[in-house]
Amino acid sequence: MAIKLYGILRSPPALRAMAALFEKDLDFEFVPVDFATREQKTPQFLALNPFGEVPVFEDGDFKLFESRAITKYVAEAYADKGTDMVLKDPEKLAIQTMWMEVEGQKFDPTSSKLGWELYFKQMFGLTDEAVVARAGDKGGQKLEDVLDVYEQRLTESKYLGGDSFTLADLHHLPYLHILIGMKVKSLFDARPHVNAWASDILSRPAWVKVVSMSPK
Amino acid sequence: MAIKLYGILRSPPALRAMAALFEKDLDFEFVPVDFATREQKTPQFLALNPFGEVPVFEDGDFKLFESRAITKYVAEAYADKGTDMVLKDPEKLAIQTMWMEVEGQKFDPTSSKLGWELYFKQMFGLTDEAVVARAGDKGGQKLEDVLDVYEQRLTESKYLGGDSFTLADLHHLPYLHILIGMKVKSLFDARPHVNAWASDILSRPAWVKVVSMSPK
Repeated sequence: MAIKLYGILRSPPALRAMAALFEKDLDFEFVPVDFATREQKTPQFLALNPFGEVPVFEDGDFKLFESRAITKYVAEAYADKGTDMVLKDPEKLAIQTMWMEVEGQKFDPTSSKLGWELYFKQMFGLTDEAVVARAGDKGGQKLEDVLDVYEQRLTESKYLGGDSFTLADLHHLPYLHILIGMKVKSLFDARPHVNAWASDILSRPAWVKVVSMSPK
Repeated sequence: MAIKLYGILRSPPALRAMAALFEKDLDFEFVPVDFATREQKTPQFLALNPFGEVPVFEDGDFKLFESRAITKYVAEAYADKGTDMVLKDPEKLAIQTMWMEVEGQKFDPTSSKLGWELYFKQMFGLTDEAVVARAGDKGGQKLEDVLDVYEQRLTESKYLGGDSFTLADLHHLPYLHILIGMKVKSLFDARPHVNAWASDILSRPAWVKVVSMSPK
């Protein structure tokens, strides 16, 4: 197989890239990276990604890291396959790009912090409730503020980037999946348009396939 | 004039968008937003950007927020004007996009934290030296780690995104400008390729023009 994705199944960025590959109906080999032995910091792996992180994407000789760069490449290079996730009209594409920036700059920093506390650290009983409180569960502002803007946007547009499902939605999937399974679910329940959007995109077959591969 | 940029001259994201407009030789009106009276949180301004932040870009009836979405739109919509900042070859563009993601996800979080402590809070004597130490001045890891990867990349490639100056470089300008004027300059001095790259892009006429408009 020509396409390989190096990752671990607990890595939200790796799952983001995997979701894009499934949306494009591409065959690929998932290559597990052994974080237990710090394989991601070996010279061999650092040659693939100098930051020593997953995912890494290979398409023949062509290599990429950074999950959102991988999804964009896949969406554009395989435009004729699977789901079309990049809008054609230049102004509509600019609006899609704007919401992709919002995900990377506003949603991701708050949701990854919450995900880290509530999901990953919780496995070891290390959740810091003060961080959770600040990040939005109650009294906090930041994820709530982002979701308030999303609620307004989703009254005007079926999807975040425009009328159809695009990368602007797909990039949210890994942390949406994590947060909606946690006690911050109430933040979503309180916002009907956000909740309907999240249910819609989380039930896409490509994402369901990603989840079915993930450790329980 | 058809193009307007709403911002303040102390906002790194506003200066990022302005640099792109100057690189493209576009005429535009800079519309100052009065942060002292919290104009950015008024209903009128929230209609332009629901996050209540600058910059906001207007091109006739078309509106955008998020600085990196603005630079991309400007670079693509005005492809025939000024500096070409988007590579044409799809694989080269994917590599450029990857380094744009690195800026947004790795360089910006560390450099904006340092810039906030050393530049903005310093104006009021509020710099938190513990944050500075953790973020990379001495003993810290994060900005240093990013710059180590940049040093390696810039031994292989004249610019971060490829052989020519692109948005992958331009997006760094506001925080490069701030950090190189601060005590963390030593982090740049210690890395000759990063230092040469920074000097090169900071001396571009478009950026010099941005700096000449900024408050001293």
